[in-house]
Amino acid sequence: MSTTATTLKGQPLDKQSLDSLLRRRLFYTPSFEIYGGVSGLYDYGPPGCALQANIVDTWRKHFILEEDMLEVDCTVLTPHEVLKTSGHVDKFADWMCKDPKSGEIFRADHFVEEILEQRLKGDKEARGQKQEEKAEDPKKKRKMKGKGQEAVRLDDAVVQEYEEILAQIDNFGGDELGALVKKYDLRNPATGIQPEPPVAFNLMFGTQIGPSGGLQGYLRPETAQGQFLNFSKLLEFNMQSMPFASASIGKSYRNEISPRAGLLRVREFLMAEIEHFVDPDGGKKHHRFHEVEDVELVLLDRDTQLSGKTTPKTMSIGKAVKEGVVDNETLGYFIARIHLFLKRIGVDMSKVRFRQHMANEMAHYATDCWDAELQTSSGWVECVGCADRSAYDLTVHAKKTGAPLVVRQRLETPKVVEEWTLEIDKKKFGPRFKKDAKAVETALLALSQEQLETLAKEQKEKASISVDVASVDGGKVELANELVTIAWTKRTENVREFTPNVIEPSFGIGRILYSLLEHNYWSRGAEGGDEARGVISFSPAVAPTKVLIVPISSKDEFKPVVRDLSQKLRSLGLASRVDDSTASIGKRYSRNDELGTPFGITIDFQTIKDGSVTLRERDSTRQVRADEATILAAVQSLVRGDKTWQDIQAELPAFESQEVEVAIR
Amino acid sequence: MSTTATTLKGQPLDKQSLDSLLRRRLFYTPSFEIYGGVSGLYDYGPPGCALQANIVDTWRKHFILEEDMLEVDCTVLTPHEVLKTSGHVDKFADWMCKDPKSGEIFRADHFVEEILEQRLKGDKEARGQKQEEKAEDPKKKRKMKGKGQEAVRLDDAVVQEYEEILAQIDNFGGDELGALVKKYDLRNPATGIQPEPPVAFNLMFGTQIGPSGGLQGYLRPETAQGQFLNFSKLLEFNMQSMPFASASIGKSYRNEISPRAGLLRVREFLMAEIEHFVDPDGGKKHHRFHEVEDVELVLLDRDTQLSGKTTPKTMSIGKAVKEGVVDNETLGYFIARIHLFLKRIGVDMSKVRFRQHMANEMAHYATDCWDAELQTSSGWVECVGCADRSAYDLTVHAKKTGAPLVVRQRLETPKVVEEWTLEIDKKKFGPRFKKDAKAVETALLALSQEQLETLAKEQKEKASISVDVASVDGGKVELANELVTIAWTKRTENVREFTPNVIEPSFGIGRILYSLLEHNYWSRGAEGGDEARGVISFSPAVAPTKVLIVPISSKDEFKPVVRDLSQKLRSLGLASRVDDSTASIGKRYSRNDELGTPFGITIDFQTIKDGSVTLRERDSTRQVRADEATILAAVQSLVRGDKTWQDIQAELPAFESQEVEVAIR
Repeated sequence: MSTTATTLKGQPLDKQSLDSLLRRRLFYTPSFEIYGGVSGLYDYGPPGCALQANIVDTWRKHFILEEDMLEVDCTVLTPHEVLKTSGHVDKFADWMCKDPKSGEIFRADHFVEEILEQRLKGDKEARGQKQEEKAEDPKKKRKMKGKGQEAVRLDDAVVQEYEEILAQIDNFGGDELGALVKKYDLRNPATGIQPEPPVAFNLMFGTQIGPSGGLQGYLRPETAQGQFLNFSKLLEFNMQSMPFASASIGKSYRNEISPRAGLLRVREFLMAEIEHFVDPDGGKKHHRFHEVEDVELVLLDRDTQLSGKTTPKTMSIGKAVKEGVVDNETLGYFIARIHLFLKRIGVDMSKVRFRQHMANEMAHYATDCWDAELQTSSGWVECVGCADRSAYDLTVHAKKTGAPLVVRQRLETPKVVEEWTLEIDKKKFGPRFKKDAKAVETALLALSQEQLETLAKEQKEKASISVDVASVDGGKVELANELVTIAWTKRTENVREFTPNVIEPSFGIGRILYSLLEHNYWSRGAEGGDEARGVISFSPAVAPTKVLIVPISSKDEFKPVVRDLSQKLRSLGLASRVDDSTASIGKRYSRNDELGTPFGITIDFQTIKDGSVTLRERDSTRQVRADEATILAAVQSLVRGDKTWQDIQAELPAFESQEVEVAIR
Repeated sequence: MSTTATTLKGQPLDKQSLDSLLRRRLFYTPSFEIYGGVSGLYDYGPPGCALQANIVDTWRKHFILEEDMLEVDCTVLTPHEVLKTSGHVDKFADWMCKDPKSGEIFRADHFVEEILEQRLKGDKEARGQKQEEKAEDPKKKRKMKGKGQEAVRLDDAVVQEYEEILAQIDNFGGDELGALVKKYDLRNPATGIQPEPPVAFNLMFGTQIGPSGGLQGYLRPETAQGQFLNFSKLLEFNMQSMPFASASIGKSYRNEISPRAGLLRVREFLMAEIEHFVDPDGGKKHHRFHEVEDVELVLLDRDTQLSGKTTPKTMSIGKAVKEGVVDNETLGYFIARIHLFLKRIGVDMSKVRFRQHMANEMAHYATDCWDAELQTSSGWVECVGCADRSAYDLTVHAKKTGAPLVVRQRLETPKVVEEWTLEIDKKKFGPRFKKDAKAVETALLALSQEQLETLAKEQKEKASISVDVASVDGGKVELANELVTIAWTKRTENVREFTPNVIEPSFGIGRILYSLLEHNYWSRGAEGGDEARGVISFSPAVAPTKVLIVPISSKDEFKPVVRDLSQKLRSLGLASRVDDSTASIGKRYSRNDELGTPFGITIDFQTIKDGSVTLRERDSTRQVRADEATILAAVQSLVRGDKTWQDIQAELPAFESQEVEVAIR
């Protein structure tokens, strides 16, 4: 696949070589490959696993430890009722359509998009225009089989129609997509058949919990719900102090219709999510906003996109909040913190932008949302979402269960409240409804002021009122007036009660990991006509292995030195790897450049004599030499980020070895 | 529940107080509690989550880093075919039986066990014998509802029969359990009805992968299969060097019939598993065995158990392997390493034993297995399994897929082999079988020497042979003799090919975590008549929080000192927590004793003057005082395990404060 993506060094990205390297060196590999594999499922091998662990570790330090967030680990298995309440059972779906002949299944929006793009491509060809290969969009990776589009010229008006449809493809529902298929007679290129009308396909994996098959459950599609359900316990743990954040790192699951974009669209993935609970009153200020207000961000806001443009604005988050581009300080604080996190793990910051969701594109729970998008060979990829979920989740769960998911704060000056209230005569109520009493009570307590007013009138006119209660007495319950008193009352409140709003930064670790690989990969030697050798320039903090130990000879006298050095590195907490194979030093280094190992320590005959070793840096291939203790201290300060390679080069004598230099060039 | 369990300090374990502490302080909590909860599912709150992370981190250092194991992260979603091959679809089941009237479902073995035990209890009562409360077995936590057993005296012979059945309850299959229910007329106490005959209930959670519903999948019941399927890639990554181990930390799932034992029997749990691949020839030696041979272990072997005794032997692992109690060095090495790990995280080693599985109790894949069992208020609990899976898994997957899951080693002296061989004429074979060619070839290559010999005879007699190939031509394929040549051949081998055996140490992190809580919990002040206050004496390495910071006053001048100290601890990688509430110092310390925080630093008015602080140790409640830098260095060496509290007390001056002493007593 040719793309316009470039490497760190400005070379065109050779995606095929990168993919081959990643498979060959076991960063990741298709799961169950000897059984033919299952699309959308990947295993991480040792370097991918270590890289993932280091990204997660950095995330934990950057967010959880830095701000004393309350980390929780909730179950993946989730009962139906929870996800019904949250809206996922009804709304967490994509539209799919089926070829009635071949049985092939398409994601409807991807199908429409791809056929229209093929037609536009055919039109350009017919007009003799040069084809510019577009960076592929990971959202539509299903390359349809069948003959390619012929070069057919379209009317100018049709071209414009197609382009307008493509610009708003994310906005269409199932009926609209079905109508487009009919209107433009879109057919499966493989069979020449029009697919059936789109049907909704829920993306959650279902399962049965327990032996009786009675409890329908799902694998969670996000870690958030577990955090919301524990809100009151977490608030208690935090000694009632607001604001606070919970956080969770764990797997989530989405049964994608036809995943085809490697790690960018998978069915099982690691997420790291924060739920920051904030008082909705007072403009959602954040007490550490001043620490980040000068952070410069690339912002592609809603208005710019609606005007049909894609040129982002660069401005400080302080200015963005002040001018209302970003709604509030708390949202802005986290956007800036996300930016700093991506920088910290070594993402190429020239390939990062924050894009605001358009109204019709947001998840059902969000009131505002900004995505951190990273540019890859598959186009701009959403890697982090930062949504303001308002009070949506806590409100719906509280309403459904009757649990008070609220904050209570003592008011400095008491407040007088006049409103309709409803009081239940428990003595009569219990015996009347028995096992349904709880359900009826919950329904009564959920009544609005308007409903109470209407019912109060009804009580004056009749001896009973009738209230909707799902699942009891056929959905309508008759309550004799003696059971409930509805009245206009006045009272003094000493406590303010509110449902917090939630700001949710949500990280797709796999997507970040893949983007990081692309951003840090380049080829050494490709310019000089040599055979290109892949290098991944991970920052020392996230590199799977920090140090390669290379004994220049496999003689026995080297073995204790190698063992001793390994042990010292281990006790410093620095992951190392020994390459004592018979390959040349240069070959051994270049093998480890592929794994992104930033430093190499060579043990040679001089080491046996005087204990000195050389330290080699991956990107420059330059080396310095000193005694072992000095080199270990240097490596430690490099990995911690206390010093740069330039600092070390200035401090320690350079080492030039003909043999090594030739081999590693 | 009264038990015979005792705390660290020899007090009877107050299980109810411990459970209440663990819920109240959010170590863990039932998942979805506001929705009524789902049995067998628990969430970890902040201290539980940190404790879990510290156990896992210690595990990773102790096993993965120490031995350069290859860590992998494989998917939980697993297609049917993989688990069919591994045997889990057919054999990973428990027997359940249903009360036809109430619909209540029981695990059949637990049902039989519980009714017989109730009858024996009734018998003892009738005989006027004193009832000794037995430590509960976590395998049978379903306390059946209904009236208790009456005091009915049984015949002596019946008592003996019941006791013999109970002693071997783990050996019975479904038919036998059903027969016992009939023979002894065992009835559900709640309804007085005999349950229906037991049926097998597979413990895997099923789900559908993909939109067409065509691909049946399961949530993995163990992490092992992903590691086996990647064997060849891992061997390649390890540069073909043997032996080596892979390792994986991740969630697994078992749909328990009726989980009722808190964290000890759950449906979703974290596992840490090692698959150590070893050459089956040469007695499975281990090159680091000498490092552990003197480790003393408590071993309850198979023979002892079969003789009806439960008194274990204490001996060094070196002796155990020498005497054949433990089969080989590699198995012995890992048993010793498991022992050292449990010690390292702070398990009470007087409550650990290794129990060998009896033949009929082992999982379908194991040839030998030792469990590390930890003693808790629920009896002896299996927390780590250490199984020799032989070549079972690699063999079945290789046979099913045709993938060569083997090791090839160059032979120093070539070997002459005479055997039946089968050669396929590919030119004719492909066109004959087309899309089925692969399946037929796989079946042919799987034929045994005996089968080949028979077929060779058949070829002499007929023009074709007939071979079983599931799913092709109705299960039987006719092969004309021209398609395959079967002959007795002689050849020289330069390469030895073998399927490695697998030694698998498998850790249930949740069970270890719960046992650790029980082993480290005790009550302070209970002896003196004071109100008892819970303390959890975690070792510093696994404690969720290492340091509590306690400013003696909430005055503004303390704030920067607290912030600065927090920051310093953070940069040392030491988790800390500030308690700046208005509660007394003593109250604040005892709140954190409940969380197991080993150290406290008090900031008082003297600190503001001269920068000195006090350091308090949780178990002794003793304090020392020095300047901040000295105290920080002391804490760091304590957490690393370089120094003990005794060392620190010897080095630094004691601090006695009337106020604090009174409060914390």
